[in-house]
Order: sequence, then structure tokens, then C-alpha cells
Amino acid sequence: MYLARVIGTVVASHKEPNLSGIKLLVVQDLADEGTQKSVIAADAVGAGVGDTVLVLQEGGSAREALGKPEAPINDAVIGIVDQYKGYGPESRA
Amino acid sequence: MYLARVIGTVVASHKEPNLSGIKLLVVQDLADEGTQKSVIAADAVGAGVGDTVLVLQEGGSAREALGKPEAPINDAVIGIVDQYKGYGPESRA
Amino acid sequence: MYLARVIGTVVASHKEPNLSGIKLLVVQDLADEGTQKSVIAADAVGAGVGDTVLVLQEGGSAREALGKPEAPINDAVIGIVDQYKGYGPESRA
Amino acid sequence: MYLARVIGTVVASHKEPNLSGIKLLVVQDLADEGTQKSVIAADAVGAGVGDTVLVLQEGGSAREALGKPEAPINDAVIGIVDQYKGYGPESRA
Amino acid sequence: MYLARVIGTVVASHKEPNLSGIKLLVVQDLADEGTQKSVIAADAVGAGVGDTVLVLQEGGSAREALGKPEAPINDAVIGIVDQYKGYGPESRA
Repeated sequence: MYLARVIGTVVASHKEPNLSGIKLLVVQDLADEGTQKSVIAADAVGAGVGDTVLVLQEGGSAREALGKPEAPINDAVIGIVDQYKGYGPESRA
Repeated sequence: MYLARVIGTVVASHKEPNLSGIKLLVVQDLADEGTQKSVIAADAVGAGVGDTVLVLQEGGSAREALGKPEAPINDAVIGIVDQYKGYGPESRA
Repeated sequence: MYLARVIGTVVASHKEPNLSGIKLLVVQDLADEGTQKSVIAADAVGAGVGDTVLVLQEGGSAREALGKPEAPINDAVIGIVDQYKGYGPESRA
Repeated sequence: MYLARVIGTVVASHKEPNLSGIKLLVVQDLADEGTQKSVIAADAVGAGVGDTVLVLQEGGSAREALGKPEAPINDAVIGIVDQYKGYGPESRA
Repeated sequence: MYLARVIGTVVASHKEPNLSGIKLLVVQDLADEGTQKSVIAADAVGAGVGDTVLVLQEGGSAREALGKPEAPINDAVIGIVDQYKGYGPESRA
């Protein structure tokens, strides 16, 4: 798992049917700020652009977190972070 | 999951029998454009060279998305992307 | 698995319900000391900031180690290390 | 999955019993040619040194591809490639 | 899977109960010699410091190889290597 900022969104109209209704977010590890590295994660908690979030990187858990056992996903946003210390370039008290 | 461009195809005539009938695409993470880094993904949505796509990186989900529980694959193209913002070097409105 | 130092904590009040009651630690691979690279791991052994720990990187085992088969996690602290030799920049006798 | 060249072999006489009878190949991602990066993959298709192959990176599928559900492996050679375009430093028509 | 040298050991007295009786080794990919990169693997074959070994990187297979389905591990030493060719900086005939 890692801490990330939500920096964008994705729209795919032609997709695998089990992806329907899943909000896809572009998230960037706080430690990668300033680089082009980011990933696409399914939203399980109602996060939006600008939020600092906890990202899970495993399909089985991710599908359970979304309550969609058939969904083809392998990354999910599972928490909105209020405070953290000791991660990446900054802390948030 | 990540966003990628389909940049090529692969033909393997001698292969594991459960791969038969699966179209294999060469996909490159949009953030890796200009490098030699790419992966081979099974096509689940009818994508072609030049398309911007959503790539899943997990075997279990990938096999379900293709409807082939026995297929030996671990990456799959699961959506064709219309719009994205905040991923890699550019956006597409 | 790898050896890490616990360097911080995370608080997320709005999160996937199955994360409730799980302590989240910021851990950094001993070999990454001095960099910004770190990950978030669930605590299965009562570790705290400053401890040298053994980190597991697999969801299935991690959930079992915490005794929470429904928890959406994929990294866990599973041991507090007393001695090690040959890992990262230093040894601990 | 990725495309690789078979560049060597491995012999281990003292090993986990379920590895018996499995041919282990040293394979190198075509994009890593000229570096020291390579991995060990179990052969599911009768590949040999010099072949360009398709490599699968997931234990569950790899064990099925070899027809050995108990084998402790997590990478397998699942196809011998005839043609490819758009992968690594060169194409093969 | 990859080839590694066993370069150290780890002792953790306070740990997840299912780790009891499992020998933990520090192993370094032969291609990473001279760097600080290494991982912790459970020993399934009686390997010791200095041995060249085959390392498996998947929890399910690793637990089976150790005969401990409940053990929280995700890397295991599954073979002691006699000969190899084409891996990392050197060969062993």
C-alpha cells in the first residue's frame, strides 16, 4: 500500500462490461511527485482530485473493497488520509 | 492498472494450447513513451495499434475479462480510453 | 519479504470499513534509507516507530497474519528483528 | 507478459521435490539486452537457447501451463515467437 | 524466479506465530552483487551462507514448498544451484 494524491480521472466508454459503474482515478505516489509516474485505481471511498489517499495494490482485496467480485481491477483507493508522518517529501499534521 | 498505447502485435505459432485464439498486443505505458519498456497484454476489448487503452496487471481478473479461466495470461487490455487528465506527459480532452 | 525501519504512522478517518482497527505504519526498506521511498504496512505484531521489522508483501498471507480475512491490505509487519547480518548498509549483532 | 531471449540454463541437483523434471531457462527481456538483468523461467513449450519467447509472470497460470499444480514456480515460457513488431530495440517480420 | 547468493541470516524473536521454525535467509540476486539490494527468503532446502540458490517469489507456491500452508511468507529458497550459464556477471560450469 502507499500514499498518493489523486491527480486526474479517466473515461473509457468501450470497456470490459464488469468495469461499468466503477470510477477510475489517476493517482500518484507522494514520493513520485514531480515525475510522470502514476497509476489508475478504482475508487472505493468517494475520493476526488486533490485528495491524499491510501492505495491498495492487490486484485482480490480491491474487488472485495468495491463489493464487485467480478470487476477486472488490481488497484483501489481505500481511504482518504487525514494525517501522516514520515512518508515522501512532507508530513501532514 | 495503467494507461498505455498499443504499439505492436505478436505472433507465436508454437505455444501453450490455452493461448489459442487470444490476440496478443504490445502495449507501452504512456509515461514510458520514448523508452524501450513495454509489455505483452491479451486483448479483451478489440483494441488495435494506435489506441490508448487501460491495462490490467493481474492474472485472475485478466482471465475472467477474457472469459478464458484456463488461459495463461497475466496482463489484459480491458478498455479503450476516450478521455484522461493528469496521466503521463499529456492529457486528452 | 524485506527488512525495514518503522518511520511513521498514518491516520485515515474516512476508509473502507474492513480497515477499521488496523494500525497502519510507514515502513522503509533498510536499503532505501536516505531516499523518499517507503510503503504503508498493516501492523500484525505491535511494532512502533524506530523498530527494525520484517515486512511481508502479499495480500493473502497478510490478511491471515492479522486474523482479518476481509481486510483490504497487501503489506504487513510480521516480525520485530533482533539480529541481522548482510542486509542493507549495516548489520545488527 | 513480455518477450525475451533464452540465454542460458540452470542445473540444481538439490531442490524442492516438485521441481523435478522441470527445465529451467535463463531468459532476458528483449528490452534488457546488454544488461545483466534476467530471470529464471520454467519451460512449458520446449524452448531452447537462442529462441525468442513469450514469458508469463504469474504462479497460478504458470503451474497450469506446465500441468503441474504443485510445482513451486512463478515464471514460465509459454510460446515461441515467430513475429513481433514494436517491442524493444528491433522487430522480427 | 532468480538466482541469488545467500549472504546473511535474520533473527526475529517477536513475530507472527506461524513464522516459528522457519529459517530466514538474506539473499541477493547475482545481478545485484555489489549493491545494497537484497530480500528475505524462507529456506525450503537447507541452504546456508555462501550457497548459490534458486529463489521463488510467490506466496502460494512458497508456502507449499515449505509444507506450511499458514506461514506468512512470500519468497522461498527452493533449490541449491550446481551449474548455470548466462545469468548475471558470471557462469558456473
